[in-house]
Amino acid sequence: MAKVLTSRSENYSQWYQDLVIKADLAENSAVRGSMVIKPYGYAIWEKMQAELDRMFKETGHENAYFPLFIPKSFFSKEADHVEGFAKECAVVTHYRLKNDEEKGGIVVDPDAKLEEELIVRPTSETIIWNTYKNWIQSYRDLPILINQWANVVRWEMRTRLFLRTAEFLWQEGHTAHATKEEAIEETEKIINIYADFAENFMAIPVIKGLKSENERFAGALETYTIEALMQDGKALQSGTSHFLGQNFAKAFDVKFASKEGNEEYVWATSWGVSTRLIGALIMAHSDDNGLVIPPKLAPYQVVIVPIYKKEEQLAAISEKVDEIIKKLRSKGISVRYDDKDNRKPGWKFAEYELKGVPVRLAMGPRDLENGTIEVARRDTLEKSVITTEDIDVYVENLLEEIQKNIFQKALDFRAQNTVSVNTYDDFKKAVKKGGFVLAHWDGTPETEDKIKSDTKATIRCLPLEYEEEEGVCIYSGKPSKRRVIFAMAY
Amino acid sequence: MAKVLTSRSENYSQWYQDLVIKADLAENSAVRGSMVIKPYGYAIWEKMQAELDRMFKETGHENAYFPLFIPKSFFSKEADHVEGFAKECAVVTHYRLKNDEEKGGIVVDPDAKLEEELIVRPTSETIIWNTYKNWIQSYRDLPILINQWANVVRWEMRTRLFLRTAEFLWQEGHTAHATKEEAIEETEKIINIYADFAENFMAIPVIKGLKSENERFAGALETYTIEALMQDGKALQSGTSHFLGQNFAKAFDVKFASKEGNEEYVWATSWGVSTRLIGALIMAHSDDNGLVIPPKLAPYQVVIVPIYKKEEQLAAISEKVDEIIKKLRSKGISVRYDDKDNRKPGWKFAEYELKGVPVRLAMGPRDLENGTIEVARRDTLEKSVITTEDIDVYVENLLEEIQKNIFQKALDFRAQNTVSVNTYDDFKKAVKKGGFVLAHWDGTPETEDKIKSDTKATIRCLPLEYEEEEGVCIYSGKPSKRRVIFAMAY
Repeated sequence: MAKVLTSRSENYSQWYQDLVIKADLAENSAVRGSMVIKPYGYAIWEKMQAELDRMFKETGHENAYFPLFIPKSFFSKEADHVEGFAKECAVVTHYRLKNDEEKGGIVVDPDAKLEEELIVRPTSETIIWNTYKNWIQSYRDLPILINQWANVVRWEMRTRLFLRTAEFLWQEGHTAHATKEEAIEETEKIINIYADFAENFMAIPVIKGLKSENERFAGALETYTIEALMQDGKALQSGTSHFLGQNFAKAFDVKFASKEGNEEYVWATSWGVSTRLIGALIMAHSDDNGLVIPPKLAPYQVVIVPIYKKEEQLAAISEKVDEIIKKLRSKGISVRYDDKDNRKPGWKFAEYELKGVPVRLAMGPRDLENGTIEVARRDTLEKSVITTEDIDVYVENLLEEIQKNIFQKALDFRAQNTVSVNTYDDFKKAVKKGGFVLAHWDGTPETEDKIKSDTKATIRCLPLEYEEEEGVCIYSGKPSKRRVIFAMAY
Repeated sequence: MAKVLTSRSENYSQWYQDLVIKADLAENSAVRGSMVIKPYGYAIWEKMQAELDRMFKETGHENAYFPLFIPKSFFSKEADHVEGFAKECAVVTHYRLKNDEEKGGIVVDPDAKLEEELIVRPTSETIIWNTYKNWIQSYRDLPILINQWANVVRWEMRTRLFLRTAEFLWQEGHTAHATKEEAIEETEKIINIYADFAENFMAIPVIKGLKSENERFAGALETYTIEALMQDGKALQSGTSHFLGQNFAKAFDVKFASKEGNEEYVWATSWGVSTRLIGALIMAHSDDNGLVIPPKLAPYQVVIVPIYKKEEQLAAISEKVDEIIKKLRSKGISVRYDDKDNRKPGWKFAEYELKGVPVRLAMGPRDLENGTIEVARRDTLEKSVITTEDIDVYVENLLEEIQKNIFQKALDFRAQNTVSVNTYDDFKKAVKKGGFVLAHWDGTPETEDKIKSDTKATIRCLPLEYEEEEGVCIYSGKPSKRRVIFAMAY
């Protein structure tokens, strides 16, 4: 079979684009910047949703749903927020179309102009805090721990499937608390959930840290982030959790009577991850043969392909395979049996390799005779022949091993692509090469801006785990007590 | 405790509105016609989604996601569809805001006008068939069996929580088939799934039938519906499944090479249910004390309330309750233990009655001594005291009984409120009284229109199950071979 993908070394960006399309994950739509998420891609999103939703609920969060549209005036209420968000967005100005009597077709009815324009939510802090205002009177009404699964729209000029699209799917948590401490605790709890999810389900090692002022969420006092490293050496921000202080409570006048009887503003957090994570998953693990999906998020974990010439061979193989499927499913393993006769086994092998199915089993007439089956693992492409007797236990262990191996590979890659530098020259070389670059920084937005315009590298985060170390800023030479992580980023 | 709800007999519509608000299901938002679905209401929707999603997947459907925005021109392509849909909808005309230098605040940037306006989807046939065009070349690409969970917007002028809102949540299935027969089979399969879901999960008996031409979906050749009867005698259309023929394939030029090598247009279906079902659920079962939720859709099926004066009593009760909770959960029963000390038991009883929790357990010090517990069922408001020994088995059976009883009650209500009439005078009396009215009709849209403008009653459906019977149309006196169902409707 001909190679279907551009190789990563040839053109990483083209490889990514090819892979998303060829593996049937998503495609561009007729609407500029909006994608169609195809069933195979959406199945990965459903797996992600299920795990995250469980984690949120186990930590006391509930789901709710707030309106898609936000009155324009709401955005003006929080000064920083409007600067960061309300500019590039979809604006609804009319609520009716009518037949075009002259030219045919339909036109916007000029009589159906809205008094106040509505913005398609780019994020929901404003509409939610406007709602919370009515829900919160007393400390007894707190905390509010709500999450929403929703679509949002940001009018991006340069889009890329999953990574940056005008419309995307996400979850956004919005919590309200009586104290600053409790809100910060919530912000940290969530970034830990995101890190747990990234590492233990997506098999992507991440660094937890704080954003610098420049990179902070519009309206936040502090933004926590998890940063992952892709195979091309670029960083990808994979989830953020914001401590919003009392900014939104003040903007929307949300006060509560405290236990002590004082009237105080409510403390807020918000946090989200999006379909961007699918982009991260692809770029972290996949290879020139196609997707590599960690077993815990694979739409199906095992595919079984029969190899036969005659119909009666297929019947005999299928009978045996049915037994195996039952055993695998009883262990909670998801299996697909591809006995369609319109494609040759070789074609199927390539197809499931492209789609990143973690384990492929193949059974031919000789296997049937010998009581064996061929097992191929996607991550290493290794094949082995084993007896079918304990195939369920074997596959169960193998899936665990694959999950661990994919993570370890990504961890090793990150270790090999993380350097500490002490001079600006070394810094420039390092960021150009790619990877995480640990360097001293003087803590000012001005220096960060200058480094960015010089090198395109940004501060990905101030890691939560770090060692104090005397040093000088690579750019300004001013004193610094810790290193931060720079990288080129998506 | 004072009555919190208007009674149904006093003002049914106000009762509904009160109940939705007081039971924390939903509320109106700052955006005209858009609701906020609160956590308790959303939890019911999640239960509904989980069951329906399972049913769709078990019948071979996959989920995907298509864009929120649809180019205006797409709506003009299917002539009937545009008449039915594209008029009252939210229109995006601009993609940027800017600071208002003169007055402050933000204004729409006139330089950021879209070349072609985008419509916020009122339903997705057009964007989806435009996409399917690229997916379908040969019969090998068929069938396509896709469902989408999404928000849609229809600019309704008179809105009502859950029943009719500008934005609502739903699922929309869109399937593509090689033959007419297969598409019709799919349409019927889905209406059967909807009926199964309504009756066995929502505990609402429904009548499956075909819509008359007047009430058909814009662009469909045939619309199948399930119709339910609410306690005020009005009908509520609870789910529809449309056989679209080749209309959308022709509008978007979607052809395939058949097995025989001919080029043919693809056959289509679409089908959906929405958050409207929550309105149906409320109106079908609830009473003047609050919600009555069938156990299979209850956010939690059992609530346990401790009754105590001293802290050590609470400790002892809680220890016993923990055991009970474990036993219940091991049977898959969802339980909430409300040991909060800020409310009296009487307040809690009223609250959980209002919220329709199917079973309430209460344990006081004397129960603890006697090894008993008080069991109250929400549907009948009956209480009994039973031993705690086999409480899990008892509650499991009770939940099943409640589920059945709620359904039976709704079935009896429908039977009592269904009449056959043979004259227009009797017809007018009957539809005014409320309920399903079985009458002969001459089969013409004109007669249906006249009856509607006379009485406000519409044909809810031509039931799939019916007996042939010679008769004459109640309005025109023309011959008719079967009765159809008329009713006032939501």
